[in-house]
Amino acid sequence: MHNNSLLIRNVRPLGKNSADLLVRDGTIVALGTDLNAEGAAILEGAGQLLLPGLVDAHTHIDKTFWGQPWQRHQAGPRIIDKIENERRLRRELKLSAETQSANQIRQAIRMGTTHIRTHVDVDTEIGLSSIEAVLASKEHFRESMTLQLVAFPQSGLMIRPGTQALLEAAIDAGADLVGGIDPGAIDRDPAGQLDCIFDIAERKQVGIDIHLHEADQLGATSIELILERTRALGMQGQVTISHAFCLGMLPEAQLSGLIESLQALDITIMTHGPGHIAFPPIKRLYEAGVRVCAGSDGIRDAWGPYGNADMLERAMLMGFRSNYRHDDELEMILDICSFGGARVMGMADYGLEPGCSADFVLVDAETPTHAIVSRPPRSLVCKAGRIVARNGECLV
Amino acid sequence: MHNNSLLIRNVRPLGKNSADLLVRDGTIVALGTDLNAEGAAILEGAGQLLLPGLVDAHTHIDKTFWGQPWQRHQAGPRIIDKIENERRLRRELKLSAETQSANQIRQAIRMGTTHIRTHVDVDTEIGLSSIEAVLASKEHFRESMTLQLVAFPQSGLMIRPGTQALLEAAIDAGADLVGGIDPGAIDRDPAGQLDCIFDIAERKQVGIDIHLHEADQLGATSIELILERTRALGMQGQVTISHAFCLGMLPEAQLSGLIESLQALDITIMTHGPGHIAFPPIKRLYEAGVRVCAGSDGIRDAWGPYGNADMLERAMLMGFRSNYRHDDELEMILDICSFGGARVMGMADYGLEPGCSADFVLVDAETPTHAIVSRPPRSLVCKAGRIVARNGECLV
Ligand SMILES: [Zn+2]
Ligand SMILES: [Zn+2]
Repeated sequence: MHNNSLLIRNVRPLGKNSADLLVRDGTIVALGTDLNAEGAAILEGAGQLLLPGLVDAHTHIDKTFWGQPWQRHQAGPRIIDKIENERRLRRELKLSAETQSANQIRQAIRMGTTHIRTHVDVDTEIGLSSIEAVLASKEHFRESMTLQLVAFPQSGLMIRPGTQALLEAAIDAGADLVGGIDPGAIDRDPAGQLDCIFDIAERKQVGIDIHLHEADQLGATSIELILERTRALGMQGQVTISHAFCLGMLPEAQLSGLIESLQALDITIMTHGPGHIAFPPIKRLYEAGVRVCAGSDGIRDAWGPYGNADMLERAMLMGFRSNYRHDDELEMILDICSFGGARVMGMADYGLEPGCSADFVLVDAETPTHAIVSRPPRSLVCKAGRIVARNGECLV
Repeated sequence: MHNNSLLIRNVRPLGKNSADLLVRDGTIVALGTDLNAEGAAILEGAGQLLLPGLVDAHTHIDKTFWGQPWQRHQAGPRIIDKIENERRLRRELKLSAETQSANQIRQAIRMGTTHIRTHVDVDTEIGLSSIEAVLASKEHFRESMTLQLVAFPQSGLMIRPGTQALLEAAIDAGADLVGGIDPGAIDRDPAGQLDCIFDIAERKQVGIDIHLHEADQLGATSIELILERTRALGMQGQVTISHAFCLGMLPEAQLSGLIESLQALDITIMTHGPGHIAFPPIKRLYEAGVRVCAGSDGIRDAWGPYGNADMLERAMLMGFRSNYRHDDELEMILDICSFGGARVMGMADYGLEPGCSADFVLVDAETPTHAIVSRPPRSLVCKAGRIVARNGECLV
């Protein structure tokens, strides 16, 4: 279908009135009625719901066990237990990050995801091997998935000398952003780690996406330090804070001050709607004009068994955890799981308008909220005009 | 298949070694190898996971919108807003409780549920009409679903004179248990409501299942009053407290005292793993020997859009909310969603042993945890030896 014309009859964009969708050379050229579709292949949409391609703006495709025999889970309760358990399993199972990332990408395609930002482990034990593996997957799936890589110091940065140079080398090798992790809790040197990654970002001219699990005032202090450096380096619009659990734990006055600064500096907050811990007040951030995006985080990996790389399931979990029961609240969540992610990934041609890349999903549901709560198989997934999944099966 | 023999080859009960399952006259007669299955119809299990029929021990099948055109949700934030919104919608939509309960039962069958305890609204506006409608569904599905009804004073009891007589009439009409709701928060007369329902239970010789959403010390006080009455009337083993959110909110010393009493009086705690609010510490209750069961609560109704009547999805949500990542924790949750519910419903012939009623589910998963996190379509659902669903389709 690529470089050709495709007309999909009778679809309902985001639940609105029925229209026909015309795609040509990978781009949406029209969404309306009585379209001139001469020579186009024709598909019947049968009144199904049309959604833009879903965007998984935070996951770890190098580390999933997807497609492998079931692993029983047994890691200890602390983050450091899980990091060490993961390093042990990685050695013992000898999984290929290229195979595993491909497994998750195919699963994501089945579920209607067209864009992924993935954090890829970089450390002094594995060096750049996972980065190289995921770059190979990126190349392999270049026509069916937009992939951004964050060079991610999962095991710490200042506490593991040599990691900084590896992060730089990862960027040189093709990673799109520099990552970080809990500068206070893991490195115990918040200014040190943040100076280090902002320095890399400035010199390499890349964005930042930092994991921040830190609770309460520890997390708030890290956010303050991130705000300072974003302002000082003029990095507005280029910084993402992933998780930011502390934003769900702070006193009101402190929270509203941080929200104001996050908005002013155009810093994006990523949440996955964690099961157990407090997390950012999504609607409040969204309504205050703070950019919000969402992701699966790890799925079926050494950290836990949950997740299906399905951003509709993620939307359900985010809404469920936030006690959002109104349709307009779940429509906001869907916006975050699509447009929110596309925006943080810098996708200028994303959407359902004429001129946008033809990245979309058809699903048998009445409304966006119905799709989120029922999550039927994706009947059609289209990436840049190419049909990449049908009736829940990945064709790539 | 009913009153006949069925051999299912190569199934893995709860993930254990492969065996063949022989069913005769609605009962499991053997689970092993080299079975004498002369004359039996034969099905190939293909190594799939065999689970006992799932038990939804708390739902509201009279009130779901399942199968109706999508309703946008707009109720206010308080419980009383939702109750009033529901009463308004009930008047405006004029849904039939018989049709709606049948819709949810069919969906539950598709998802592998073989037993349901449902709370059915009784109030001075609708009288016994919902009870009668659900009793009609119970009769209609008598060969494909075990159904228990709780006469449920959703709108309050002491604040709505006439409700007590209706609850008694509901029991006389065929409801199995008497319900209650937030005796402090809704009736503002905790001793009054509890005296009333324990009196009905004693005179009518039925069990009690009371909704208790009350937080903190308000909820703890209600539990104390329930403990006192259970002890005084010798109702050990006949009382369920549904939700008991306060058990997730109390100081340690108070919590451990309550857990000891709940265990001693054999009171069951029902949880559905709510999205937003604190809830009981499941593993701690389970390990202390308190009976725990689980349910969907309302699905797709005036209270909210979530839920698919799928107890594997419910198990995922309960594990996700409890931060249970280990396989043994999720196996405990599955036990609660099957044996836990069967025990509170008094099902003596429940299980996968010879002699048990042939109520079971086959699913294409490697392990119980894999089934919970991936939730594939149920390939086969059997109720009392009758095949009631196949490949995700309800046959009833
Ligand atoms: Zn992550
Ligand atoms: Zn309920």
